[in-house]
Amino acid sequence: MIGGGQGAFIGAIHRKAAAMDGLIELSCGAFSTSADKSLASGRELGLPENRIYPDFKTMIEREKQLPASERIHFVSIVTPNFAHFEPAMLALENGFHVVIEKPMTFTLEEAKQLARKVKETGLLLCLTHTYAGYPMVKQARYMVARGDFGKIRKIYVAYPQGWLSELSEKEGNAQAAWRTDPSKSGKAGAMGDIGTHAAHLAEYISGQKIEKLSADIQTIVPGRLLDDDGAALLRFDGGASGVLVATQVAAGEENALHISVYGEKGGLSWHQMEPNSLEIKWQDKPNEIYRAGQGYLSEVALHNCRTPAGHPEGYIEAFANLYRNFALSLQAHLQGQKTDPALIEFPDVQDGVRGMAFIDNIIASGKSEQKWTTFTI
Amino acid sequence: MIGGGQGAFIGAIHRKAAAMDGLIELSCGAFSTSADKSLASGRELGLPENRIYPDFKTMIEREKQLPASERIHFVSIVTPNFAHFEPAMLALENGFHVVIEKPMTFTLEEAKQLARKVKETGLLLCLTHTYAGYPMVKQARYMVARGDFGKIRKIYVAYPQGWLSELSEKEGNAQAAWRTDPSKSGKAGAMGDIGTHAAHLAEYISGQKIEKLSADIQTIVPGRLLDDDGAALLRFDGGASGVLVATQVAAGEENALHISVYGEKGGLSWHQMEPNSLEIKWQDKPNEIYRAGQGYLSEVALHNCRTPAGHPEGYIEAFANLYRNFALSLQAHLQGQKTDPALIEFPDVQDGVRGMAFIDNIIASGKSEQKWTTFTI
Amino acid sequence: MIGGGQGAFIGAIHRKAAAMDGLIELSCGAFSTSADKSLASGRELGLPENRIYPDFKTMIEREKQLPASERIHFVSIVTPNFAHFEPAMLALENGFHVVIEKPMTFTLEEAKQLARKVKETGLLLCLTHTYAGYPMVKQARYMVARGDFGKIRKIYVAYPQGWLSELSEKEGNAQAAWRTDPSKSGKAGAMGDIGTHAAHLAEYISGQKIEKLSADIQTIVPGRLLDDDGAALLRFDGGASGVLVATQVAAGEENALHISVYGEKGGLSWHQMEPNSLEIKWQDKPNEIYRAGQGYLSEVALHNCRTPAGHPEGYIEAFANLYRNFALSLQAHLQGQKTDPALIEFPDVQDGVRGMAFIDNIIASGKSEQKWTTFTI
Amino acid sequence: MIGGGQGAFIGAIHRKAAAMDGLIELSCGAFSTSADKSLASGRELGLPENRIYPDFKTMIEREKQLPASERIHFVSIVTPNFAHFEPAMLALENGFHVVIEKPMTFTLEEAKQLARKVKETGLLLCLTHTYAGYPMVKQARYMVARGDFGKIRKIYVAYPQGWLSELSEKEGNAQAAWRTDPSKSGKAGAMGDIGTHAAHLAEYISGQKIEKLSADIQTIVPGRLLDDDGAALLRFDGGASGVLVATQVAAGEENALHISVYGEKGGLSWHQMEPNSLEIKWQDKPNEIYRAGQGYLSEVALHNCRTPAGHPEGYIEAFANLYRNFALSLQAHLQGQKTDPALIEFPDVQDGVRGMAFIDNIIASGKSEQKWTTFTI
Repeated sequence: MIGGGQGAFIGAIHRKAAAMDGLIELSCGAFSTSADKSLASGRELGLPENRIYPDFKTMIEREKQLPASERIHFVSIVTPNFAHFEPAMLALENGFHVVIEKPMTFTLEEAKQLARKVKETGLLLCLTHTYAGYPMVKQARYMVARGDFGKIRKIYVAYPQGWLSELSEKEGNAQAAWRTDPSKSGKAGAMGDIGTHAAHLAEYISGQKIEKLSADIQTIVPGRLLDDDGAALLRFDGGASGVLVATQVAAGEENALHISVYGEKGGLSWHQMEPNSLEIKWQDKPNEIYRAGQGYLSEVALHNCRTPAGHPEGYIEAFANLYRNFALSLQAHLQGQKTDPALIEFPDVQDGVRGMAFIDNIIASGKSEQKWTTFTI
Repeated sequence: MIGGGQGAFIGAIHRKAAAMDGLIELSCGAFSTSADKSLASGRELGLPENRIYPDFKTMIEREKQLPASERIHFVSIVTPNFAHFEPAMLALENGFHVVIEKPMTFTLEEAKQLARKVKETGLLLCLTHTYAGYPMVKQARYMVARGDFGKIRKIYVAYPQGWLSELSEKEGNAQAAWRTDPSKSGKAGAMGDIGTHAAHLAEYISGQKIEKLSADIQTIVPGRLLDDDGAALLRFDGGASGVLVATQVAAGEENALHISVYGEKGGLSWHQMEPNSLEIKWQDKPNEIYRAGQGYLSEVALHNCRTPAGHPEGYIEAFANLYRNFALSLQAHLQGQKTDPALIEFPDVQDGVRGMAFIDNIIASGKSEQKWTTFTI
Repeated sequence: MIGGGQGAFIGAIHRKAAAMDGLIELSCGAFSTSADKSLASGRELGLPENRIYPDFKTMIEREKQLPASERIHFVSIVTPNFAHFEPAMLALENGFHVVIEKPMTFTLEEAKQLARKVKETGLLLCLTHTYAGYPMVKQARYMVARGDFGKIRKIYVAYPQGWLSELSEKEGNAQAAWRTDPSKSGKAGAMGDIGTHAAHLAEYISGQKIEKLSADIQTIVPGRLLDDDGAALLRFDGGASGVLVATQVAAGEENALHISVYGEKGGLSWHQMEPNSLEIKWQDKPNEIYRAGQGYLSEVALHNCRTPAGHPEGYIEAFANLYRNFALSLQAHLQGQKTDPALIEFPDVQDGVRGMAFIDNIIASGKSEQKWTTFTI
Repeated sequence: MIGGGQGAFIGAIHRKAAAMDGLIELSCGAFSTSADKSLASGRELGLPENRIYPDFKTMIEREKQLPASERIHFVSIVTPNFAHFEPAMLALENGFHVVIEKPMTFTLEEAKQLARKVKETGLLLCLTHTYAGYPMVKQARYMVARGDFGKIRKIYVAYPQGWLSELSEKEGNAQAAWRTDPSKSGKAGAMGDIGTHAAHLAEYISGQKIEKLSADIQTIVPGRLLDDDGAALLRFDGGASGVLVATQVAAGEENALHISVYGEKGGLSWHQMEPNSLEIKWQDKPNEIYRAGQGYLSEVALHNCRTPAGHPEGYIEAFANLYRNFALSLQAHLQGQKTDPALIEFPDVQDGVRGMAFIDNIIASGKSEQKWTTFTI
């Protein structure tokens, strides 16, 4: 693991998620840019001292020298955005597979470089768009693809949070501090942090890609350096249209990502905060509530469930699904085999490139006087 | 009553709503452009034959000649949009107060004429924006105005319906037929029918007016003559921004108008389909559920409740609140008195003018290549 | 109307409900045991003074002498329990049909007398078990009767309220005062006031009758004279079993009547506070949400809806359904015809007898050391 | 781990839960009564072959002989009920701490023996009443204990499941087979499997103990050998009363454990299937929704959260809380220290004894003609 030292949020989630299914073992780490903090973090995690490294370069270099039976198979990169590219590229160059946080890089150009390197090396890269890991999201995607709703016409996705309603970055909130700092986050704040999740979810479920957009991007809280709020009208390449909302100043909201998709015959709604239900809506018969763990779900949805219906799974399990699917793919890869892509899948480097392009395009649209900005990569 | 003959939807609602509180009695009507149908409708409603008129002109003329103690005080106009202006103007010219369906007229110019006539005559005009009649909407407006949430930053309003997912107007659905016919509905379909409701609700609760907007207006169902779908980015005059969605092709949705408003300290959410709850959200303490009929509500909210908490009131009661507040204002007016505008209020001719302007502006924005269209009246 | 003067709760509801559909007109009343209060109440309701009576005896006597075309067809009795029997009997004896509040009488013996009189006279009596008037309750009953769920095994009904959590009857709450006074309410408090509603609902939906029960009946608030809380294990004559809860000391609850019924293949849940949804549960496919106003409902459910789906109806409309069905039956009766009992129905005198027997049996069980008390009438 | 071989449900949950926080490592196991199956299961879990044992006796004997630095600290017993006591007693006798599934033993007498042994040895025993591990259950218990609601009056707990609606034990469902077999489950079916959970939850949140009960216990599905359904009226030692429902034939229900508790001033409701919300009800102010992960929660609730508010945790995390609290207590124990019992707690051997007594008492009450059975241990 690179990053995720003491006090970090997402690093701990990665570790719990990776541990859940007994397929992955934390073997080494460079947990901080401070060698002392890295050491302390690694000790707390029970790692032997010779596998706790002062920095990621040392880690990759030394791990590479270990016998194949001892060294790691892949690295997890859980640093802030600006520190994604370098370790990812180094890992790939040295033959390590990669799990990496979103947004994938600091710039679109870096993302494209990673994509080229992945293609060149044939190594696996998993981008942790957590919400794509939920079983009911898989079920939604499956039902859309099967044509249950007819041609998809409307896609509404919203990701309201309230945690940046005040200028928390000036009040000692470390999470807020780097996420609102252009030198660490990149050119976008909310759009990078949660807008990319919303865009990915919309494309993932609908199977359509954003083709053009018209955005209103704002910095609502005075004194903030990056956008903390935005909305965009969307047109998709499959003929659908819709709206994307991503805001971190919806005071009183927690992490209320939700999406509704409508086709000619019906639609669906899914809310991240009650993730085990998927509401299916019909124009001419009663709406239905599909539930995680139920035998009537698709194979791909059930593959991503661990418990019987009524025993709720949550965010960590969704995250664990990414790791499990990555690990199963990696196992197959190491044995020269392939897994069924309809069953075992995870967001990859192409999703990472699209995410970085989304940031570029939506920020550009926010600055444009023209209504529509064509989505370019 | 003008319009609302056999088979009409909204006329029957008006009658139930008006009857509810024992303040208003249906005394006469011109229920249809067909004299026979008007007669049959009036008989079914138990009216004496001499108060059932073949057309609205005859009705207003004859009623005017009745002794003051017998004649009507006001007319309710529940015809399709294109047939609003003439009877409304005639009623005002002859000294009758008016209750009228939204959108108020066929064109903005007509709306302005009505506004001038109302001003000139001092008569009352009530526009039936039903959703403003719900007690929890009153409570929401009250709490925003009191400053409970601090300065309002974000306003999201959405009005998804699914009933026009198919080309129902070609399949004998009379409601669909006139609403999608430009010669009866005017220049807008969904934007006039439900977009105006959404816009009114957003302005009513927030106390802010739309200042500019950027719209994507579409006709989704092939063969339809008017828009059936749209969305707009909004900027308000009090500094808030947001999104408005109004669509009639969200297959599987009933009448799912909902709104969320956020200020610096917290926010609120209200859903028309569960109208007796108002969710109040706080950044630093537990969210609260305000409920219709509870003693802790504001005076204005309680004034618009009829039953103790837990005995649900609905759409007809919201409608009845418009009629009751109109009737109480009219009673006062007839006695040369005034009611407390903070307590007894209803949407009026100015709301009607704004509604017509909303239609003009959003349709114009839909056709514009520029991102922002300034809201003009 | 008998009872329901100024300040009364349920009388006003009856009037709104009766007025809603234009089938019933309030023509006269004896609104209070105080002649002055009756007069004031009647004036407020716009009645002519000669139809406002000082007491129910005068009312029935005088109305009887009016020409058939002028006099009332039926009386609505909305007095406290102890004052139900006398006016009801007098009305029946004088040829007037009756609408009457529940519980029907003060004692079971009175109820049986009314039943005999109804049988003897052939007059109609409608008992206002409001909750049976909701369309989704009709739908539930219909689906159970059609066998959708197989043989019914389990019936859980609960009616929690919180409004008697304190000794409100000593603090000027008039509603609380008579309901907790044995000389006005009868031998039961909560069991009579709301327990009867719960028992009726369970039997109405399931089509099964309570056969034996085991009750724990308590007076929780010190100083109260009647039960304010109770629960009972139930066995039904069709083989089902279940639990009934009725309490008025569930602090924080409004009027949270809800019921769940399960058969071999699935079940249903209905909550009075969100009455337009009926959750249908299946063992082997997704649960469904049936919604008021939808075209897929049974004819009997749709007959009891007034608005399209998504335009919520509530408590007053449920009440109005009782009045409408009563009025339609009465119209047919007056013309020597019969309505379809599967479509046009309302709780009747037999339900009133069962309700009074329920009170007797549950209070007896509460005092018994034996587990089971056989339900006897 | 003892039990939990291939195909077992709860063993896999235990492993995921134990692994989550990096405090516990699976080191050895006797996963099945079949040595072959144990070996296969252990291999699949990545254990070295010398730590995979053919049976629990061998395992405890051999582990005991390992150096302290290598051997296990505790055993997890996840076998069917009849096979709990022997390995638990052997583990305790050999100095191993114990985590054990509920119900704790086959008979009450065995439970008492374990309790004596725990007392004698000073070893820790954790009983996996999962639902007590949810943070919002901790919050509920905390608020009741702090007196937020005044004296507790009413406790309603219900645990409806539908999975035994048919005679699944005869159709190859292994879970159903042992749970409905008296020789494996003991004298109770549903009452032991889920009734004990419901009873524990009621006592855990309320802080009151069941004092007497009146039960209706049934076998609904013909051909079944143990109870699959039951309900009981309850009286608690702190003056509260209530109802417990536990059924496995509520067709269409998943795992719908829920509880409502009311005091003089307000109450609470919690539903296991949406575990991150706790509804707090007040008699005179708006109800509140307390949410997992929020800063306003009690210290003990937050101690049992892993993610920020809005990132749902579920069943596995609740389970992991038991393991984490057990592990933290064990770490302290091994260092001769004590943890704060208000913060770090888990169900223990006394809860196990009460659970077995609950089974005895409710089954006895079900057979009794007397209304009340005094709860005896």
